[in-house]
Amino acid sequence: MQPAGGPMSDRRQSRLERMLARLATQKACLEFAQRELAGRPGVLLELGLGKGRTYDHLRKLFPAREIHVFDRAVHAPPDCIPPADCLWLGDLREQLASPRIAALQVALVHADLGSDDSAGDAHLAAALAPLIDGLLDAGALVLSDREMQVPRWRQLPLPLAARGWAYFVYRVDR
Amino acid sequence: MQPAGGPMSDRRQSRLERMLARLATQKACLEFAQRELAGRPGVLLELGLGKGRTYDHLRKLFPAREIHVFDRAVHAPPDCIPPADCLWLGDLREQLASPRIAALQVALVHADLGSDDSAGDAHLAAALAPLIDGLLDAGALVLSDREMQVPRWRQLPLPLAARGWAYFVYRVDR
Repeated sequence: MQPAGGPMSDRRQSRLERMLARLATQKACLEFAQRELAGRPGVLLELGLGKGRTYDHLRKLFPAREIHVFDRAVHAPPDCIPPADCLWLGDLREQLASPRIAALQVALVHADLGSDDSAGDAHLAAALAPLIDGLLDAGALVLSDREMQVPRWRQLPLPLAARGWAYFVYRVDR
Repeated sequence: MQPAGGPMSDRRQSRLERMLARLATQKACLEFAQRELAGRPGVLLELGLGKGRTYDHLRKLFPAREIHVFDRAVHAPPDCIPPADCLWLGDLREQLASPRIAALQVALVHADLGSDDSAGDAHLAAALAPLIDGLLDAGALVLSDREMQVPRWRQLPLPLAARGWAYFVYRVDR
């Protein structure tokens, strides 16, 4: 993403530009998923509530679907806090292994996990990928801000409006 | 901004859409100021550091100018913290009255002050407007996320790319 030049070069992206690119990419990926999943049943899993922005957009795009949301703690504004029976606080790996989650039919997983620690993020993504995979049937989608490698997942090209920021779209193939 | 329909209506803007509109508006307004102020000397005042996004974009747009930044406390990432002699922490009204600020030639004030408390914001904007005005000569610009009324300020139309979010652009007339 970062063009040539030092951090104070005129050609670098500012934090304002990077945030705009990231949010526009997320919006485009979520809207791609909305189109792709039309007519396919299943709940949504949002890994990382954060400020609740993408959760709020998912609610708007998928008003009829249950959205289960996972985070360590709640930092979202009050109007973006999921109902108690759809909010899973604590260690993500433990929560994803819960029998109530395992019993769900999941259409989409959105993993918005990235931090400034890219080695830690890669480690977390590698640990989560098989857990996520265990919840999915063929045809389900995974959107992630970190690369995940699962043999039966096929990476799809990003929607055009999502090409200003690194994001990963996978479909479970079989 | 909010179209007809309750908070769960499909037509409302999600928090993701609102953040995108806000950041795109800020970017367009800052870039308008860059064009308008070309050739005009003066430092910049950023009222509200927050996460440092617009400060970072101002640094990119105006690499040769001093940018004085005001906030109650620092919540920005380390690479977006201004040098100590340009960082003013504490009560904004007191800081703006400091002799060192009064001695500056100011080309642009960007006031990014809005909170969820619109009555409190309006009160703060009304209190700040005359203090800001006292620092400005004719030709200086004020960008603000809250309306400010000063007789010698003329409100300019928003740049086209800034029309998805309420923002205010003023030029000091005389």
